[in-house]
Amino acid sequence: MLIEELVTPALIVDSAAFDHNLTTMSAALPGSRLRPHVKAHKCTALARRQAAAGHLTFTCATIREVEGMAAAGLGQDLLLANEVVDATRLGRVEGRVTVAVDSEETIEAAADGGVKEVLIDVNVGLPRCGCDPDQAGDLAAKARARGLVVRGVMGYEGHGVGIEDRALREQLTAAAMELLTKAHADVGGEIISAGATGTYDINTWANEIQAGSYALMDTAYAKLDLPFKQALSVLATVISVSSAGYAVANCGLKSLGMDHGNPDIEGGGIVLIVSDEHLTFVPEDPVVVGDRIRVLPAHVDPTVAYHERMHLVSGGEVLESWDIDLRGW
Amino acid sequence: MLIEELVTPALIVDSAAFDHNLTTMSAALPGSRLRPHVKAHKCTALARRQAAAGHLTFTCATIREVEGMAAAGLGQDLLLANEVVDATRLGRVEGRVTVAVDSEETIEAAADGGVKEVLIDVNVGLPRCGCDPDQAGDLAAKARARGLVVRGVMGYEGHGVGIEDRALREQLTAAAMELLTKAHADVGGEIISAGATGTYDINTWANEIQAGSYALMDTAYAKLDLPFKQALSVLATVISVSSAGYAVANCGLKSLGMDHGNPDIEGGGIVLIVSDEHLTFVPEDPVVVGDRIRVLPAHVDPTVAYHERMHLVSGGEVLESWDIDLRGW
Repeated sequence: MLIEELVTPALIVDSAAFDHNLTTMSAALPGSRLRPHVKAHKCTALARRQAAAGHLTFTCATIREVEGMAAAGLGQDLLLANEVVDATRLGRVEGRVTVAVDSEETIEAAADGGVKEVLIDVNVGLPRCGCDPDQAGDLAAKARARGLVVRGVMGYEGHGVGIEDRALREQLTAAAMELLTKAHADVGGEIISAGATGTYDINTWANEIQAGSYALMDTAYAKLDLPFKQALSVLATVISVSSAGYAVANCGLKSLGMDHGNPDIEGGGIVLIVSDEHLTFVPEDPVVVGDRIRVLPAHVDPTVAYHERMHLVSGGEVLESWDIDLRGW
Repeated sequence: MLIEELVTPALIVDSAAFDHNLTTMSAALPGSRLRPHVKAHKCTALARRQAAAGHLTFTCATIREVEGMAAAGLGQDLLLANEVVDATRLGRVEGRVTVAVDSEETIEAAADGGVKEVLIDVNVGLPRCGCDPDQAGDLAAKARARGLVVRGVMGYEGHGVGIEDRALREQLTAAAMELLTKAHADVGGEIISAGATGTYDINTWANEIQAGSYALMDTAYAKLDLPFKQALSVLATVISVSSAGYAVANCGLKSLGMDHGNPDIEGGGIVLIVSDEHLTFVPEDPVVVGDRIRVLPAHVDPTVAYHERMHLVSGGEVLESWDIDLRGW
């Protein structure tokens, strides 16, 4: 199939950039040093490529992601890096499932649901989930008393991972990981799980990194000094050209995650307005109705979640089409 | 089924508020005076309720929406209020399909694709699609020369519809509709289509209003002086409570359209951070792990597009579950 035959808007993945990203990451963090986060792509076909690159342990953000990965035969070691208050569905998954816990309630939920293994989730500075660092040992003891295996700790330095200044990113990561390391000393277990694409080569305290965005990338992470290439774009068609100097393409708020702001246009141009199914932009070079443009999302995760599939492309051809099969909850 | 049995995050629709909205709108704009825009809900079951309220003509934003509405038996008079450069799929739809055109290319596409009827889309001030007003008559002549029936004009005063100051909203609408009325004089045809929820009772120039948000509403439109009630919320579960005074619920960027900013919490509370699957908030009253909250999206359209279904609820019960079956393209 040719790219030009795709119905737009369409999520496309540049094969060469994607391969580069996987190769670069697996060289830096081989095997289980990386626990790829599937929330960034929600796609078992893509996860299979990560597995082929040597990573057989995965991170998930939702129960649906865990279920889908296991059903796809990728359930060798799945971490749900999030708290749940009902683990019944997790307990039924055929595969190895570990769930994050940060409270007595979530420990009870894991045990009641039939999940056997947990990580103690520690708050290391991001105002989100995670227990206070000095409670981690106590929670681990409670989890063990409930019959759960405590595999170690996780703590996400999310307040630092997107900072463009590398020195500051290093400083925030070090401070966060000092907290996590201390908590780990109280908790025990073999796993110290943390990190993200933005700290994949900074966070040397963790023994596994939960990076996801590196595979596809977005314009927010592109501002950092990372060796990963922009592989993902939204292919869109110019449907209107105004005499006032702007043009309109047929992608919009329902094909782009907007929390990080407007997307960019590959090759230049200025985005003026994004509405539900429209992108109004001033093109770098003149365009005509029917031209196609590639739009670079500011945030990969919520962009992917809008689409039914992504297409791996090279030159003018669609090599493979992958279902985005881990959406929903 | 009880609401408490729903897997969260879940999109829920308050039955009383929804009924109020449909009744209020159909009293103000009965029958074909309203051409409900399905992009705001992407749900044929909801559209069927709008049809039961007397509206048998609908507005769509995508080809998929047109196809889905026709397949659901709601294809009596469907307007695709957007330009397309390939109308082949539209030409195959079994139902009455009218498509917006604003250029010779889109006229050619409509004719080539087998679509029989068009509206001339006129730019009335929003920098998006639509021809210059003084070109409308010429385009209509070209469309007729290609054998198309020109049913009239459409022009979206989108730059005005969300303005809180009613006097300014009226002023912008009047200026926009002056342009559309002039264009209509050049074009002919029985339809003058325009508008939105924000101008449903202001835009008296158009003879049909393309309102969509009124049925479910969002916090952006709630700031206007409209008689519609917030019917839509995202039901979420508290998964973590911090000693620092905040809590975390399990909904986030993938269950909320974020282009209009952070959502609100029903009953109060302050939203601090929204990440992929988390909402960090300071609750109005203390919460515990396992509590459920209702989160009010800032923008209904891109919120709905993330979800597989919505649940009509009343009291503690789920009355009906509706597939959001018009997603994708």
